[in-house]
Amino acid sequence: MLMLEKIRIVLIHTSHPGNIGSAARAMKTMGLSALYLVSPKEFPHPKANEMASGAVDILEKAVVVDRLEDAIGDCGLVVGTSARARSIPWPLLTPRELGEKATQESVHHPVAILFGREQSGLTNEELHRCHFHVHIPSHPEYSSLNLAAAVQVIAYELYSAAENNTIDRTWDCRLATEKEVEDFYGHLEKVLKEIDFLKPTASRQLMTRLRRLFNRTRLDEMEVNILRGFLTAVGRFGK
Amino acid sequence: MLMLEKIRIVLIHTSHPGNIGSAARAMKTMGLSALYLVSPKEFPHPKANEMASGAVDILEKAVVVDRLEDAIGDCGLVVGTSARARSIPWPLLTPRELGEKATQESVHHPVAILFGREQSGLTNEELHRCHFHVHIPSHPEYSSLNLAAAVQVIAYELYSAAENNTIDRTWDCRLATEKEVEDFYGHLEKVLKEIDFLKPTASRQLMTRLRRLFNRTRLDEMEVNILRGFLTAVGRFGK
Repeated sequence: MLMLEKIRIVLIHTSHPGNIGSAARAMKTMGLSALYLVSPKEFPHPKANEMASGAVDILEKAVVVDRLEDAIGDCGLVVGTSARARSIPWPLLTPRELGEKATQESVHHPVAILFGREQSGLTNEELHRCHFHVHIPSHPEYSSLNLAAAVQVIAYELYSAAENNTIDRTWDCRLATEKEVEDFYGHLEKVLKEIDFLKPTASRQLMTRLRRLFNRTRLDEMEVNILRGFLTAVGRFGK
Repeated sequence: MLMLEKIRIVLIHTSHPGNIGSAARAMKTMGLSALYLVSPKEFPHPKANEMASGAVDILEKAVVVDRLEDAIGDCGLVVGTSARARSIPWPLLTPRELGEKATQESVHHPVAILFGREQSGLTNEELHRCHFHVHIPSHPEYSSLNLAAAVQVIAYELYSAAENNTIDRTWDCRLATEKEVEDFYGHLEKVLKEIDFLKPTASRQLMTRLRRLFNRTRLDEMEVNILRGFLTAVGRFGK
């Protein structure tokens, strides 16, 4: 997708090449392709390729630089991932807000999202180069997402924002009309009396409950046909 | 958080123990703790513990069962992760909608979220036991999230929803458990054959459509009793 092309993932001082590979895989599942590596400890590396699985192409065109400024200099929006609150609070985005903002802005200029070292994250200096920080919500007792997991969550929000409402919720039949459903209720009530399940003296409660059940489910046309076919078969069964 | 306690992650036929460990870590970062394993290939296993990192406690209290029904029988909401569209479309949730629904409902009954095999996902039969399917949006050209990455995204949405919401819908009966509904399906199928509506030679389509109908409606306890009473009356009617 166009709006994802200009969003780059910047991994800073990554220690384990396997994490670079896993991050590339996470990116590719969410339509991201621009990977920047600032002074990775070991790269390229077979372990990175192994963990990337089908996303080796992202590693192959990854841009490796020595200094952070070479990875973000041309960007109009720079966001740093941060696990903890800072002494000087910075404008903070949730991952969802980042998804919206980054996909809106990437139409105009490149966007960089920075991920820090496995052990210590981003330095204060790196964080101060950012327009915003993003904090992935996590349980206070154990908030240790690994690097690729963090990339996966952020990438998921980027992709969701880009995709926004194109999910396929098609159904295979049209919904039944109100009249079709009413006719089904009439048929149902008739059969319930015939088989002596609904006594003529009974309260309306039973039919009301059955109406609530089937109204809630929004019957489609074929389902009404199946249910009425079933009721007809029940009627025949007693003869 | 209370509403996360009753949400269980169910991994089915996982091949690689390392993936079980990574999934446990992903769960713990998002405050989830109930892990069910249906016929894992190798478990316990040192690789699982290694990948779990600080989440070994989740592995230690994981519940290992042979059959899916033993992992979900007491659940009021069962959701299956699915990567592709199905021939008979099922009610679909986005991960975000799942987060909201699962955290609302887990106050009332256990909730299960199913993840299938690394290579092939959930079988059709497993998917037909679900009330909803959830599809993690991903890029069509490469949608291969690994198992732990998928658990991470879903767990993130669950945690985010738990942080935010507390809305509740009141109802006059508790929802039926998965087992109660399965027993109803068994009874229904038996009666359908008895009255010759379901031919022994018929395809599975009819039962699948009926499952979809009733799974979608989320039967409550009294409704299951009404429907089973009706089926019993139908059986008597023919004699």
